[in-house]
Amino acid sequence: MSKLIPPPIHDVAAEFDGLPGIGPRAALRYAYWLVNLPKDRLLRFADALKRLADGVTRCHVCGLWSDASPCTICTDPRRNDKELCVVASPQDVRVIEECGAFKGRYHILGGTLDPVSGRTPEQLYIPALIERLMNHASTITEVILAFDPDVPGDTTVLYLKKQLAERDFGRPIRTTRLARGLPNGATLEYADEMTVAEAMEHRREG
Amino acid sequence: MSKLIPPPIHDVAAEFDGLPGIGPRAALRYAYWLVNLPKDRLLRFADALKRLADGVTRCHVCGLWSDASPCTICTDPRRNDKELCVVASPQDVRVIEECGAFKGRYHILGGTLDPVSGRTPEQLYIPALIERLMNHASTITEVILAFDPDVPGDTTVLYLKKQLAERDFGRPIRTTRLARGLPNGATLEYADEMTVAEAMEHRREG
Repeated sequence: MSKLIPPPIHDVAAEFDGLPGIGPRAALRYAYWLVNLPKDRLLRFADALKRLADGVTRCHVCGLWSDASPCTICTDPRRNDKELCVVASPQDVRVIEECGAFKGRYHILGGTLDPVSGRTPEQLYIPALIERLMNHASTITEVILAFDPDVPGDTTVLYLKKQLAERDFGRPIRTTRLARGLPNGATLEYADEMTVAEAMEHRREG
Repeated sequence: MSKLIPPPIHDVAAEFDGLPGIGPRAALRYAYWLVNLPKDRLLRFADALKRLADGVTRCHVCGLWSDASPCTICTDPRRNDKELCVVASPQDVRVIEECGAFKGRYHILGGTLDPVSGRTPEQLYIPALIERLMNHASTITEVILAFDPDVPGDTTVLYLKKQLAERDFGRPIRTTRLARGLPNGATLEYADEMTVAEAMEHRREG
């Protein structure tokens, strides 16, 4: 890096460079853009990052990022205790909550299995999920596996289905997964063949 | 913004959302990506921003961002005091320094004139430039206007040329600008017509 870049600008650029999808050139551009801001804007940004380090915790029940543990979803008495939706990341919870079609509880796995990039079951919150289902006080009778429709997502579904089938929870537990088909607003002409095949196979009455 | 996003994550996302080219979705993605990092990485990032607020100053001579004022270029005794290169931003100095073809001094204007987006001469370091040239100790005899080859750049060149022509500096001062033509490695077939016209008009002997 050029010696014409003052170290404080270089250091901020280095932090941005680490973010997904931001390369060294864009990172330097951000650093130069930031240095032009009023100091209080920069300090506010620094402060927000500090509070991110100190003020957010993982809910010890479901794994959601939250300012309290257990989180607001886990403590909400109006939610359905029979359905557990397993997702890869906290962002997925937000998406499902916004659709409004699910009122049960969540379990965040912390990722999906991906042998190619070396993500193994040990790196995910799978033991916590088993433990939650094993708990004698648990009333969960349906586990919804809500992963992205891709290879790691499908791998995770297969793995978890096997894990759950092998165990005796003292009650029947259904495992289900999100439906596949044509997304809302799609054009049949441009849909990929896998999606069309899924939509055809799982077609429903009128 | 969803109430499912903890305030510390929301606040960091809001800061990223302000950066050029980063929208609310990408900003939220960065915030969720950051919250997964070890705390010390976050604190290091926060610290780097703080040092950006406190440890970088504008050189009072040329306007370059630097950790000292005057900066290393302004205090370098080996540099040529007769040529002054006027650029829009500190990043441009780095680019010109890297090409190695200029050994004079710099003046950073802080932008270019752009009537469309409301950037007027008052927002730029033009008075400081005039003052620098007026100074009786100044030995500057060439002012190189090194702006981007676009409408704001050309507007700024025209404006500055007029400003300099109107004044008596007690010595002749040439104003020059960067050459236009085909960039290195270009394919004539794909060059835009303006560039080819410039390259033709300013053609040189073999």
